[in-house]
Amino acid sequence: MRQKLYSVIIAGGRGTRFWPLSRSRKPKQLLKLFGPKTLLDETADRVLSLAGSDQTLIVTVAEQLNAVRKALRGLPRKNVLAEPEGKNTAPCIGLAALEVIARDSDAVMIVLPADHWVTDVPAFRRTLKTAAELAARHDHLVTIGIRPAYPETGYGYIVKGKPLAGDGIWGAYQVKRFKEKPDAKIARQLLRQGSLWNAGIFAWKASTLLTLIERYQPQIHNSLTNIAKAAAGKPLASAAPKLGSVIAREYKKMPSISIDHAILEQAASEGRVLTVPGDFGWSDVGSWAAVHQMSARDANGNAANGNWLGLDAKNCLIHAPDRLVVVLGMRDAIIVDTPDALLVGDLKRSQEVRELVDELKKRGYASYTVDSSRSGR
Amino acid sequence: MRQKLYSVIIAGGRGTRFWPLSRSRKPKQLLKLFGPKTLLDETADRVLSLAGSDQTLIVTVAEQLNAVRKALRGLPRKNVLAEPEGKNTAPCIGLAALEVIARDSDAVMIVLPADHWVTDVPAFRRTLKTAAELAARHDHLVTIGIRPAYPETGYGYIVKGKPLAGDGIWGAYQVKRFKEKPDAKIARQLLRQGSLWNAGIFAWKASTLLTLIERYQPQIHNSLTNIAKAAAGKPLASAAPKLGSVIAREYKKMPSISIDHAILEQAASEGRVLTVPGDFGWSDVGSWAAVHQMSARDANGNAANGNWLGLDAKNCLIHAPDRLVVVLGMRDAIIVDTPDALLVGDLKRSQEVRELVDELKKRGYASYTVDSSRSGR
Repeated sequence: MRQKLYSVIIAGGRGTRFWPLSRSRKPKQLLKLFGPKTLLDETADRVLSLAGSDQTLIVTVAEQLNAVRKALRGLPRKNVLAEPEGKNTAPCIGLAALEVIARDSDAVMIVLPADHWVTDVPAFRRTLKTAAELAARHDHLVTIGIRPAYPETGYGYIVKGKPLAGDGIWGAYQVKRFKEKPDAKIARQLLRQGSLWNAGIFAWKASTLLTLIERYQPQIHNSLTNIAKAAAGKPLASAAPKLGSVIAREYKKMPSISIDHAILEQAASEGRVLTVPGDFGWSDVGSWAAVHQMSARDANGNAANGNWLGLDAKNCLIHAPDRLVVVLGMRDAIIVDTPDALLVGDLKRSQEVRELVDELKKRGYASYTVDSSRSGR
Repeated sequence: MRQKLYSVIIAGGRGTRFWPLSRSRKPKQLLKLFGPKTLLDETADRVLSLAGSDQTLIVTVAEQLNAVRKALRGLPRKNVLAEPEGKNTAPCIGLAALEVIARDSDAVMIVLPADHWVTDVPAFRRTLKTAAELAARHDHLVTIGIRPAYPETGYGYIVKGKPLAGDGIWGAYQVKRFKEKPDAKIARQLLRQGSLWNAGIFAWKASTLLTLIERYQPQIHNSLTNIAKAAAGKPLASAAPKLGSVIAREYKKMPSISIDHAILEQAASEGRVLTVPGDFGWSDVGSWAAVHQMSARDANGNAANGNWLGLDAKNCLIHAPDRLVVVLGMRDAIIVDTPDALLVGDLKRSQEVRELVDELKKRGYASYTVDSSRSGR
């Protein structure tokens, strides 16, 4: 590949779905859900070899900046960008594109979330390399499409068009359109048609993206241009107060919109989006049930860590880092023990943990959604 | 009643069935299972008006002595007796009978466990008074028989004989025999026959009991006689080291046997046992399920205390004195949160908590069965 490659890890999620482990100051990407490393760490490990640590960027939000820096000591300080506030993925990825283009006007950037899970890392890397090579050769937006295992209604889908002419060697396709979370019937149809899950993993030239932002989202482009002028070629992560205040001001102006809605859907309708199918054991780790599914489990189907004892416990997810947890005759239970709060729930209803956090706020337990670092005693 | 009345509360249980709340140094009778008072406190409240605090005795075991004294500050210090070791109920009640007879050779004693639950206290007191009056008039052992609500297989039964001749006014019966925990079929038969649950609540003259101990259990009687000689009329609770060492020596010799096996069964076969039926909302509080059943419950059937939030939680027992406990979509669950250990279990399997404690000891968690006062952090 002639151009330089950058990887951009998006680490801004709030992660209310993993309460009581996740809190506003300890979101999903900073949790150790599958072992000794955080999801962010695991993600960085997966991609560092692609672009190298000098060319791997993280975008997070201000309130997580210190935690992210601490978690990724191997990255240059200037490679960790902080948004002043969360505004969905379009402004975030736009900001990253500014930084990439300032370093290399011709660079290709891979964009991926910090909080996903991948089981087959070599296959994952091969797919990303393919996507990056394609992005280098075409002024297209390249998406990774996951070969679906079942008709999931919680994911978005990529509806394939024709195989990429002349580039059949890549196994890539034109993207006809995107379909947001479908109902069960539509999901089955999509599977039959060979549609792919949209994993939110992309590759494109930073310049291509900015051109399309200019076309489809002039307001965002205007703000990004103002930020670029204020930066005047200096890294966006520089602590210059003037640059920080410009970014904060422009963020207030930008709409909160996803890159899919802002750019990809419209680009697809103009035939500007490609997809590279991938099959590498992927999950967006959307709930405690997904953690259970992706974890190592014992003969009884229990995924557990810490100090615990089960008597006829089956298919449970048990997080017991501290106190002794004893489980008697339970099926499909979530037990997550933290210093100040405990969740005991039905694993099949782990999608409702989000609502539960809203409920906590309503019922006067808001402090339990913020931070778990204080002692529960 | 001509004779003086004494109440003897037996408070020696180990209470492994309420782990993790109960520990060897914090047995069932010292737990607050139904409100702000311990079961022992509640029992004392129920009976104090019968004999007065000067004539209410507690028998406990040495390792619980301080905790019991602390719990019942209203009782004279000499009214709290400590067994050097637990030897089931026959030696324990025999020891209490020595103390009672030393104070009043003609006294009637009511004997009752410290760790039961009663909902209709006035009816309970009326029944005990009747039993005591009967015991004062007859040289018989009087048992309280609970009118059974259903064919429970976990209780012992009292098989009634004829109504007490000439004393029909008391509603009392001869006891034909005792039947230990029956199977379901026998339990149904027993109900049809009008048999009663054996609640382990008794009334008799101390002198009557000691006479029968002499006849049926000469070994125990011999030990009790040696203890009485060493006491020489002084209270058994006196801290005299010599008396203490005699009691310890004699306890080593006595068999570990229940008062039922040691005395009542044989006395019944000789027509020396009466029963007074009672109906006062009684439970021996044998498991977490019993606690759930006897507790105040919310509209969803949850019996809970502490800091908790349920989202579609039904029929759960939740003990959350400290940390926030959130319950999502659970049915029939036990959740007992303590500083160092947490139990999450199926309420319908709460009988297995006992085995669980054995399992903990086997698996190297014995320290968690001893004491919960240390911090879990």
